[in-house]
Amino acid sequence: MTDLQNPRILRAEIRAQRFTGPTSGVGGDALQANLVILPEAEAAAFLRFAQANPQPIPLLAVGAPGDPSLPSLGNGIDLRHDLSRYRVWHDGALVGEPADIADLWRDDLVSFAIGCSFSFEDALVQAGLPVRHQSAGRNVPMYRTNIPTRPAGPFEGPVVVSMRAMPAAAAIEAVQICASLPLAHGAPVHLGDPALIGISDIMTPDYGDAPVIEEGDIPVFWACGVTPQAAILAAKPAFAITHAPGYMLVTDIPAGQAERRLRGVHARPGA
Amino acid sequence: MTDLQNPRILRAEIRAQRFTGPTSGVGGDALQANLVILPEAEAAAFLRFAQANPQPIPLLAVGAPGDPSLPSLGNGIDLRHDLSRYRVWHDGALVGEPADIADLWRDDLVSFAIGCSFSFEDALVQAGLPVRHQSAGRNVPMYRTNIPTRPAGPFEGPVVVSMRAMPAAAAIEAVQICASLPLAHGAPVHLGDPALIGISDIMTPDYGDAPVIEEGDIPVFWACGVTPQAAILAAKPAFAITHAPGYMLVTDIPAGQAERRLRGVHARPGA
Repeated sequence: MTDLQNPRILRAEIRAQRFTGPTSGVGGDALQANLVILPEAEAAAFLRFAQANPQPIPLLAVGAPGDPSLPSLGNGIDLRHDLSRYRVWHDGALVGEPADIADLWRDDLVSFAIGCSFSFEDALVQAGLPVRHQSAGRNVPMYRTNIPTRPAGPFEGPVVVSMRAMPAAAAIEAVQICASLPLAHGAPVHLGDPALIGISDIMTPDYGDAPVIEEGDIPVFWACGVTPQAAILAAKPAFAITHAPGYMLVTDIPAGQAERRLRGVHARPGA
Repeated sequence: MTDLQNPRILRAEIRAQRFTGPTSGVGGDALQANLVILPEAEAAAFLRFAQANPQPIPLLAVGAPGDPSLPSLGNGIDLRHDLSRYRVWHDGALVGEPADIADLWRDDLVSFAIGCSFSFEDALVQAGLPVRHQSAGRNVPMYRTNIPTRPAGPFEGPVVVSMRAMPAAAAIEAVQICASLPLAHGAPVHLGDPALIGISDIMTPDYGDAPVIEEGDIPVFWACGVTPQAAILAAKPAFAITHAPGYMLVTDIPAGQAERRLRGVHARPGA
């Protein structure tokens, strides 16, 4: 039987196009990442944008121009094949959702792997905290806020947040858990009254599904990986590739070891 | 000039009854403590009560029966003289507020030094977070909740909380700061809707002064050192001595080093 919980086997299955689905629930406890690919010209400004906004855009790895590997995240990763669905953008408009981008690859493309909320949701579940959209089989609700990003070159726009509602005691625990996970968006950026960050209707998110909020819950808001995607689309680069939402780059790095292994001087791949 | 910021000089001044005021703003950055003194018979149950409820009752030190010193908290501490005001209780009723308890001391008295919120408020101020009752020159508002303590012997009752209102982003930082200070009540126990923990009117606290709440603030609630006092009074021991509110035991231990120095195997006094 094919062990889709093994990230290397999973990537091989994806590369062979035998596994074509979203990556939630597969890859074991391996860190999953958002992917952004830009031509070198735009990549320099995007790198500055990411470094100025580490909470919505926690950079896990940046590829060398033209290099589709990301050795610090896993041996043998080839970004031309190893995601099950990509999105291709021309001048900010979606032009396709291919399962492989080998034919689109160019010598000037720079790849960015960006931390995603899967890792911290896993930590919340491990701690016994409710993650209501997961239990309900829904996508997490996400909202544009009135919190601005720090702009860099053509990249700017509001911080997008994801929301998870839970009792206050759980929210207090979640702050402590997530504060130690800066590569997965870190501590929440807001909790309580949504209007204070410019969200007028909590039941109508800008992205994702409607929230599940139980009585006594407080809404808790985290910086979200949709922030860079929204900024990229607004900047309308001539050419860009991203992962398709939910179809992530699966690394070799156990999520619980990501902070130590990717931040350390002696960072080692997921070998 | 007498340096009241030096905790040893301050204790000597208190012992000589030249300093007779509350200890807020003096003693430098030294850890200050709540004091509870009980006869040995009740002390055993109170010790179990404290250990079952570490968040409202963080024990810094427990004296040997009849011993008025607490060497782990400071060289030469003599609890019979070293607080500027005490409260004496008979059967749960306040019978006096002496400045010295040498004439009341007995061979069976056991002393408990309990962490207090001064230390964590200092950490919040250091981090640039608002502590509105301080800025307004008021006492912190405190409330009885519907959260029960874990009972032990005659000691039981609700957790009492203190409340500090601040913007949500500050509350998120405060959770992270206070989580690392378990000897000063640790992370908050609740935030947001006061009714969820049985507080019907936030503007009318059960102890302390009315709160200062600014627009956009969220109320944040911490377990409070009044919890054990309330439990002791409810248990109505035949005899008890406590500090008078605001007139604390000033230790030799810098507040920022308390966790490391009092929790470690090699705990050393504030020498």
